Amino acid sequence: MSNTAGSTDTTSLNVESLTVSLGERSYPIFVGDVGFSDPAKLAEGLAPYLKGNQVAIITNETIAPLYLQQVQSALGNRQVDVFQMPDGESYKSLDTYTQVMDFLLEKKHNRSTCLIALGGGVVGDLCGFVAATFQRGVDFIQIPTTLLSQVDSSVGGKTAVNHPAGKNMIGAFYQPLAVFADISVLETLPDREYAAGLAEVVKYGIIYDADFFAWLEANAPALVQREKYALTHIITRSCEVKAAVVSEDEREGGRRAILNYGHTFGHAIEKLLGYGRLLHGEAVSIGMVMAARLSVEFSGLALADSQRIEKLLQQLNLPVTLKGLELNAEAMIDAMGMDKKVVDGELRFVVADQMGSVRVASHVSVSALEKTLAEFC
Amino acid sequence: MSNTAGSTDTTSLNVESLTVSLGERSYPIFVGDVGFSDPAKLAEGLAPYLKGNQVAIITNETIAPLYLQQVQSALGNRQVDVFQMPDGESYKSLDTYTQVMDFLLEKKHNRSTCLIALGGGVVGDLCGFVAATFQRGVDFIQIPTTLLSQVDSSVGGKTAVNHPAGKNMIGAFYQPLAVFADISVLETLPDREYAAGLAEVVKYGIIYDADFFAWLEANAPALVQREKYALTHIITRSCEVKAAVVSEDEREGGRRAILNYGHTFGHAIEKLLGYGRLLHGEAVSIGMVMAARLSVEFSGLALADSQRIEKLLQQLNLPVTLKGLELNAEAMIDAMGMDKKVVDGELRFVVADQMGSVRVASHVSVSALEKTLAEFC
Repeated sequence: MSNTAGSTDTTSLNVESLTVSLGERSYPIFVGDVGFSDPAKLAEGLAPYLKGNQVAIITNETIAPLYLQQVQSALGNRQVDVFQMPDGESYKSLDTYTQVMDFLLEKKHNRSTCLIALGGGVVGDLCGFVAATFQRGVDFIQIPTTLLSQVDSSVGGKTAVNHPAGKNMIGAFYQPLAVFADISVLETLPDREYAAGLAEVVKYGIIYDADFFAWLEANAPALVQREKYALTHIITRSCEVKAAVVSEDEREGGRRAILNYGHTFGHAIEKLLGYGRLLHGEAVSIGMVMAARLSVEFSGLALADSQRIEKLLQQLNLPVTLKGLELNAEAMIDAMGMDKKVVDGELRFVVADQMGSVRVASHVSVSALEKTLAEFC
Repeated sequence: MSNTAGSTDTTSLNVESLTVSLGERSYPIFVGDVGFSDPAKLAEGLAPYLKGNQVAIITNETIAPLYLQQVQSALGNRQVDVFQMPDGESYKSLDTYTQVMDFLLEKKHNRSTCLIALGGGVVGDLCGFVAATFQRGVDFIQIPTTLLSQVDSSVGGKTAVNHPAGKNMIGAFYQPLAVFADISVLETLPDREYAAGLAEVVKYGIIYDADFFAWLEANAPALVQREKYALTHIITRSCEVKAAVVSEDEREGGRRAILNYGHTFGHAIEKLLGYGRLLHGEAVSIGMVMAARLSVEFSGLALADSQRIEKLLQQLNLPVTLKGLELNAEAMIDAMGMDKKVVDGELRFVVADQMGSVRVASHVSVSALEKTLAEFC
């Protein structure tokens, strides 16, 4: 762990920091009270990463009224232009991408500009893709404002826009210069969205760190209460785990696939219900319980550990069952892209051997899958 | 030289090869009779780079009737889809980019697909940018069909599309898996376009290799006659020089700027005349003569060497003067983005110290520039 991501306690500032180690593309993540309540502190934090005199902030209509002024105040006398997009996944499109490009060129931004993504995953993914391709790549900084984007999309360099034919079909791997995760933004996050972010946090415990999972169990009430010490810790540890996995496999050749634990089931659920009915994290929560049950059948995960996963997710106000969602086993198999032919062939799932340890299994038995689906559908 | 690009003589196959050394992104360039006259040979050459079962060829309406069948014949039983764009720089746009993305998704290409750019610089730049960003990056192979794209745009990983606000404003650095430069395509190239490609070849001699420059002088008649031995040599040596420069500076931080020798003047000429009146290589030819004259004034290039440059370009049927083009010195200074204020400040040019050696000078004297412009305008 220590060679891929190290945590530094800077308690006096109420900020934790860690490094995503990717050689010359390494970058720091700052977590805690990074300065939304104090523009001078935010300015000091941003300063080392602002090399030129131009900044463009990409944000959306929901976030701008809440935090735009704080960020603008921290940018001093630079040329600061703001592109405000509507809120929603449907705007993570080539159309918005083109609009941002037009905007940057109209405002005469050059190769030395720095883009700041102020928002959740949609803003971050879109802004990152613009940064990756504006004049063949410019600097960018992430200021994620949701729990999900703080623990997931701001680590790993995946940038993209959607296409009618599929999510994230157009994009690039491109790393930010730095990430500033201010936990104060979590105070105003709606309950469902907050819980959905916690699903990914639990995932990091399951796939990589049994001690962290135990810590989450012990601190579940504090998490539900959004206590600051707990928020800072889960964001830092989640980023460390993701950073460690990504450092081993930046461009998703193999190992990085373990981050998809619970996602094969989760994506199928989202697809069948229609995107939007469940939040991504909610579908992943159910998917992780299903993957745990499959792991009990297939890869020897203790039944007790499978039950711990289910219980923790429930404590965090996340759904853990398909009951009431009118889904059946055959439709699930279809939605996972596993028709009879594929099922007879290679069936790949991320399965757990024990708490904190998962692997990609490429020959999951059909009977184990059917048994799991029968239990849930 | 030997540590950045090595030439291997494979005379029996009539193919030379060299490697662009960029660590894990290194790739080979094959030059000569790579197989346009023999699909089996081309198939053998391509095979190691085609990892999946899907291929998409991006080409244009001029090139397709000439060479598409040869390339298709070399691809065997794979799924091969062809996107044919109109010919011309105006189609190097986000609009065409979007069309290609739609096309690939409609034909259900996945992350294991391989794109083949069959055409000149426009096709190569556009296809490369699609490859860089389709599903966050897929394999691509360049088959350049003009002299300019064989010696310039297929080396170095610059991919892009234009924007109404400027050329190459949207793009990425992305390297191909391999480049196949078949010299037979040069037989049918129009004279002006062929000569324009030679301008960049001469540039490599000036900026990096005095012996190569002398070789070009000695073989000028053979070059005009497009003799095969000469074509194979100039393409190979040009790619070696560009590869060496790019290997030192993949993302254009400094050293790579020497590739712009003659281009500051050249771009200004293109801009003032309107794009299209002179070919890029023709404007660069005039620009290189101007830069040589500036170098005599500013950096001690021998007058005799400046004259050699002018004479060689003339022998290759390239323009070397602004006479008759109705350009004046003030307009040139304007077009170079150097208004009075900039002229009084930092004036950056690539200047030659001697044949085969250039550098970026950041404090060119105004008087030297004015003297050069007065001589030409």
